[in-house]
Amino acid sequence: MKDLNDMIIPGFDDMVAAHDRIRPYIHRTPVLTSSFLNELTGAELFFKCENFQKAGAFKVRGACNAVFGLPGDKLEKGVATHSSGNHALSLSYAAGRRGIPCTVVMPRTAPQAKKDAVRGYGGRIVECEPSTSSREATFAEVVAETGAEFVHPYNDPRVIAGQGTCSRELVDQVTDLDAVIAPIGGGGMVSGTCLTLSTLAPGLKIYAAEPDQADDAARSFRAGHIIADDAPDTVADGLKVPLKDLTWHFVSNHVTDILTASEQEIVDAMKLIWKRMKIVMEPSSAVPLATILKNKELFAGKRVGVIVTGGNVDLDRLPWLAQ
Amino acid sequence: MKDLNDMIIPGFDDMVAAHDRIRPYIHRTPVLTSSFLNELTGAELFFKCENFQKAGAFKVRGACNAVFGLPGDKLEKGVATHSSGNHALSLSYAAGRRGIPCTVVMPRTAPQAKKDAVRGYGGRIVECEPSTSSREATFAEVVAETGAEFVHPYNDPRVIAGQGTCSRELVDQVTDLDAVIAPIGGGGMVSGTCLTLSTLAPGLKIYAAEPDQADDAARSFRAGHIIADDAPDTVADGLKVPLKDLTWHFVSNHVTDILTASEQEIVDAMKLIWKRMKIVMEPSSAVPLATILKNKELFAGKRVGVIVTGGNVDLDRLPWLAQ
Repeated sequence: MKDLNDMIIPGFDDMVAAHDRIRPYIHRTPVLTSSFLNELTGAELFFKCENFQKAGAFKVRGACNAVFGLPGDKLEKGVATHSSGNHALSLSYAAGRRGIPCTVVMPRTAPQAKKDAVRGYGGRIVECEPSTSSREATFAEVVAETGAEFVHPYNDPRVIAGQGTCSRELVDQVTDLDAVIAPIGGGGMVSGTCLTLSTLAPGLKIYAAEPDQADDAARSFRAGHIIADDAPDTVADGLKVPLKDLTWHFVSNHVTDILTASEQEIVDAMKLIWKRMKIVMEPSSAVPLATILKNKELFAGKRVGVIVTGGNVDLDRLPWLAQ
Repeated sequence: MKDLNDMIIPGFDDMVAAHDRIRPYIHRTPVLTSSFLNELTGAELFFKCENFQKAGAFKVRGACNAVFGLPGDKLEKGVATHSSGNHALSLSYAAGRRGIPCTVVMPRTAPQAKKDAVRGYGGRIVECEPSTSSREATFAEVVAETGAEFVHPYNDPRVIAGQGTCSRELVDQVTDLDAVIAPIGGGGMVSGTCLTLSTLAPGLKIYAAEPDQADDAARSFRAGHIIADDAPDTVADGLKVPLKDLTWHFVSNHVTDILTASEQEIVDAMKLIWKRMKIVMEPSSAVPLATILKNKELFAGKRVGVIVTGGNVDLDRLPWLAQ
């Protein structure tokens, strides 16, 4: 790690150390392909299936790295976080595996499936309103009360180093990739991808994919500084949070472009993946395919890694069946 | 193959030859596990994921074996069949890969997703009423009209030899299995499993799983002769067809038991697999887990292969969301 303008920037060695630390607690997830989707897009797509990951999402990588890297004197008070869902599950899972307490602040509107899963892993939930401001205020109270170690869902060097292990596996599983594309919310997965691939595959292009209705990262990228929205509304519930200084560092230095898609395009891409690939994944995870389908010329003839970030969806409220 | 009471019985060598013949056209599908489901059942379950198979179901194995084994003088008139769905898709896929015509008789009530997929692979559909009697009458007309080679969905030695390649892969992928369980409709997958495992793993128990509402195979098994129902009604739409002489031969000689589950148990097991394993599979494929959950004492502490037969489900009509 190196210190830059008061930020701790995780480096390639931190990612390698994270991988060694978390390997007993995570899956090396499979990479799936679809000849139908290759034909449809004109690209060769390699889907890195973090929907099959422990706790149902890539976020368990960063959460495990933070929890299993905690020094002994911090274990008793445990960990705490705020999260729109998957980081909450993942931190609860990691804390459960290490046997320490975990408190999570979640929007009351988060999918019931995610709340149930947090409690299933032994996490304690404190609810807030679905806005960045309410989340941050509620969380400050929780930390004051518990004295727990804050593990931010993405703006944390331990978390970014953990997320970087995903693309390390991907380039080991698939040779000669031309590009990788991942959804972007707060930017943890994209930052980890930048961290790893800027060393392992520096010529490879890194794209981020975002909903039109929560396009703060795309606007930040074009403006050259962070633009944060309060409480954007999108079916891709994992992608509502804004960039922070640490993820902005990686995004602004290494990302080739940020592409966006409409709500309908995201839902159509999600249903198409379920139908043709027979995998259950979240709306957020469909945003990359939605943007590839809109920008075929960028990807035609290319070998493209697509990060399927998670599979925690409420099966009683599928977006293509909504009223 | 050997001749027995006018039946051509496929043997182990036929299965090996089938595997060599079809390998370029099928996937060696992955085996997935779930620590949650292992804990829930007390068994170690190994899910052989034929929902990821070409055309979305195991049936492509038998269909490809029949189509790619056809002699040159039979190619021009093509192939024909009747099927409640997946065999139709699979034969259309196989015929398309070999470039020969394919006609399928399907119940008009078959899921729209399956009809669309048959046409997508280039198959021609002739509709019938959803009963065994209507299907057989309509099919006789089709054969008279086209002169096509009949590839029965299961009562065909070429098809059974092809289906047997699935459990050959399974015992190669997972060592020391105690049992294998597969859904049973006409008995093609179960017969192929018997064919292969009676040679490769003769001590292993073979269970079949069936809906209460289409339990003709279970009643046949107890009676000692084939009992066929006309037009049973179950959410497991792939399992409505009766045993025939060839599949009865394998089932009556090699199956340990046939277990059944209610409609609600099947739907609950299906939703549980989607939720915890993040895979899309058909109601028929959930019947094995539903019966394992009802008969935990049979499987506790055992290593059990579970054949997930297919993933072709209508995403607009999920059974837990039905009115």
